[in-house]
Amino acid sequence: MKKHLLTPGPTPVPPEVLAATAAPMIHHRAPDFRVLLERTVGRLQQVFCTTNDVLLFTASGTGAFESAVANLVSPGDSVLAVSHGEFGERWAKLASVYGADVTSLAVAWGETPRADDLARALAEKPADVVFLVHSETSTGVVADIEALAAVTKAAGALVVVDAVSSLGAVPLETDVWGLDVVVSGSQKALMSPPGLAFAAVSPAAWERCELATSPRFYFDWHRYRKSYESLGTPFTPAVATVAGLDVALGMILDAGLDTAFARHAALGRACREGAKAMGLKLFSPDDESSAVVTAIFTPEGANAKELVLALRDRFGITVAGGHGDMATRLFRIGHIGWFDVFDITTALAAVELILTDMGAPITRGVAVSRALEAYGEAVAVP
Amino acid sequence: MKKHLLTPGPTPVPPEVLAATAAPMIHHRAPDFRVLLERTVGRLQQVFCTTNDVLLFTASGTGAFESAVANLVSPGDSVLAVSHGEFGERWAKLASVYGADVTSLAVAWGETPRADDLARALAEKPADVVFLVHSETSTGVVADIEALAAVTKAAGALVVVDAVSSLGAVPLETDVWGLDVVVSGSQKALMSPPGLAFAAVSPAAWERCELATSPRFYFDWHRYRKSYESLGTPFTPAVATVAGLDVALGMILDAGLDTAFARHAALGRACREGAKAMGLKLFSPDDESSAVVTAIFTPEGANAKELVLALRDRFGITVAGGHGDMATRLFRIGHIGWFDVFDITTALAAVELILTDMGAPITRGVAVSRALEAYGEAVAVP
Repeated sequence: MKKHLLTPGPTPVPPEVLAATAAPMIHHRAPDFRVLLERTVGRLQQVFCTTNDVLLFTASGTGAFESAVANLVSPGDSVLAVSHGEFGERWAKLASVYGADVTSLAVAWGETPRADDLARALAEKPADVVFLVHSETSTGVVADIEALAAVTKAAGALVVVDAVSSLGAVPLETDVWGLDVVVSGSQKALMSPPGLAFAAVSPAAWERCELATSPRFYFDWHRYRKSYESLGTPFTPAVATVAGLDVALGMILDAGLDTAFARHAALGRACREGAKAMGLKLFSPDDESSAVVTAIFTPEGANAKELVLALRDRFGITVAGGHGDMATRLFRIGHIGWFDVFDITTALAAVELILTDMGAPITRGVAVSRALEAYGEAVAVP
Repeated sequence: MKKHLLTPGPTPVPPEVLAATAAPMIHHRAPDFRVLLERTVGRLQQVFCTTNDVLLFTASGTGAFESAVANLVSPGDSVLAVSHGEFGERWAKLASVYGADVTSLAVAWGETPRADDLARALAEKPADVVFLVHSETSTGVVADIEALAAVTKAAGALVVVDAVSSLGAVPLETDVWGLDVVVSGSQKALMSPPGLAFAAVSPAAWERCELATSPRFYFDWHRYRKSYESLGTPFTPAVATVAGLDVALGMILDAGLDTAFARHAALGRACREGAKAMGLKLFSPDDESSAVVTAIFTPEGANAKELVLALRDRFGITVAGGHGDMATRLFRIGHIGWFDVFDITTALAAVELILTDMGAPITRGVAVSRALEAYGEAVAVP
C-alpha cells in the first residue's frame, strides 16, 4: 500500500534530501565535511534569522531542550515555564530534574498563553530564565513569542524558546525579538530525517552558561563552540543526516522563507476549512496562526482512535491522535515541511469517507472541494 | 575522484544499508516502526551476546558514555577509569564532570592495560564502578576485557565497557564475561551511519541506577526501558538510521559473528604484514588482537601529516592521523565493518607510492603482495 505521512514530525522527506543522506559516507574530520558543516550552520542561521551561534547536536529535539536547561540552570535557580501543552510541561519537568525552583504558568491545552499573564507572574515572582513553546504540537496552538519575549526581557529574565515544530513553518525572528536561546530539530518543517537538534545561543545566554554549575558533557555548549573554530563537532555527528539537512535548507532558502510561511498558512487554512465543511469542530484555533498542525474533534459517536486506525489500515495514511484523555475525541493532521494542498485533500477525503461509513451525516465531496477553494483564496492574497 | 574511506569510524556503509536509510520516512509511533525497533533491538542483543536490555539512543557514542555515568554515578562515588588512550581519558573526564571521586589507572598510549594492575589498584582503593575501554581507537590496542572484568567483579565493583569500535569486530561476550554496562555506536563495525548509540544494561546496573542522584532526562535509562514496553522510544529517534542499522545487523548476523571476527583478524594481519614489508614500524601491537585499526609509524624523515594529506589529495583516500604529539609520526588505517582485503591493499599501495616519492627506501610492490599473502594465510587457518 502506498503510504501517506501526515504527522507533525517526523514529516515526509523530499527525494533530493533522501538521496543526499544515502551518499557514500565521509569522515567528519575530512575537508568535505567541514565545508558541509559550515554551509549547513550558515543556512541554519538564515532560517533562525540570527547571527548568534547555532549549535548542532546529534540528538532528538529533547536533547536540545536539555542542553538549554543544563547550560543555563543551576540548582535553586528560579525559572518559569509557560505551558500550554505537552512540550511546555516538558520544560518544567526538565528544569525540575536539574533542581530549579520551577514556576509553571499553565493555561489549558488548546488555549493560547497571554503576555499580560506572564508579565503578572514575573512581577509576583521574578525568574532567571523563562521557557516558552512557540508551536505546541500537542494542540496546534502557535504562541505569540514576540509579545511573550518582550515581557520576559522587560522583567530581566533570559528567554528560551522551543521552536521544534515552528522553525521554517511560521515566522520566528530570533534576533529581532531578542530570543536568547531557540531550540529546534531536523524532522519537522525542515523536511529532514530525525536525528539532529539545534540551539541558537545569544551572547547573554553564553554569559549565563559560564556560571551554570549543572553537570553536562555531551550537551556542553562550550565543546560545540570550540569545535566550530576548526569547523568540526566535538563528537562524531550524524554525517548523513547533516548532508540531507543541508539540501533541505537549500531548497527552503532558495524558494524563500516567506514562501514557506505563506504555504504553511494556506495549508492550515485549507485543512481547517475542509474539516469545518464536514461539520467538524476544531480544537486548534481557527485563525491564520494555526499553520503547523490542525487538531480536529470527531463528531459525536465517532471514536477518534478508530478513525486513526482506519486511516492507517484502509488507506496507509498516518495522522496523529490526541494526547491522554483526548485520544477518543481528537485527531491531528500535520502540515509542516514537504506538503502541498493535495496531501491535505488526500487526508480529508479519507477522513470524510471513514466518518461517513461510521454514520456521520456528511455530504460527500465537501471537504476536498472546500479545502481546494480555501487554499486558492489563501494563495491569491499576496 | 573516487573516494576511499579507511578511518576507524565513520566507516563505509554498504549500499543495501544506505538504500534502507533513504526509504520514505515513517512515523516512530506507527506499527511499521514498532516492528523495526523490536527486530533491531533483538539483533543488537545478539551482537552484544546478551539477554540484558539494550537501550538505543539517538546520539553519538559519547552520549551512551554519558548515559552510563549519569545513570550510575552520584557525586562523591568512587570510580576507577582504566585508560590507555583518548577514550579511557574520556571516561575519567565524564565521571569528574558528574562529581565522582575518580582514580585513573593509566598506562602509556599504545600499551595494553593489565588485569593484575587493576586488581592491585582496586585493593588499594575500592571503587563502586570501573570504566574500561575495549578497543582504544586512538592506538589500536584491544584490551582483555574478560580478564579486566573478572578482577573488577571480584573486587565488588560494577564493570562498564566502551565497545564503540570493538562491537562486531572482535569477540565481546557481555553475559559470559559478566559485563554490567556495554556502550557502543552504529558507525563502526556495525557498518551504519553515525547517529545511534547503545547501552546494554545488566540487572545489577539497573539496581545501581535506582540510587543514582545525578540529573538526567534525555539519557535517563528508565525512560527508554518504559518506552520499550510499548515498542517505542521516549523521544523521536533517528528513524532512518534505525532502518539502516537493522539491515546492517541482518547482514552481519546472516553471515555469522564468527565470520565477522575472522575477517577482521585477517584484515588486521594483512595490514600489519603489508606495513612491515615496507619496513614500517607498528605502533599497534603486532598480534591477532589488533583487528580494529592499525597504527603505523612513518619512516624517519617522512612526516605523517604530509602522508595523510597526500593520500587524501592525490588519491581520495582518507585514513586517520595520530593524536596530539604523535601527529607527525603516526597514521592509522581503520578496517572495521564493510572492508575486504582489497581495501587494505588500496591503502597500502598508495602509502607505498607516496612514501617512495618522499624518499623512503621501499621496494615497490612489496606491501600489496605481502598483505594478500598474509590474508590468504589467515583465512586458510580455520
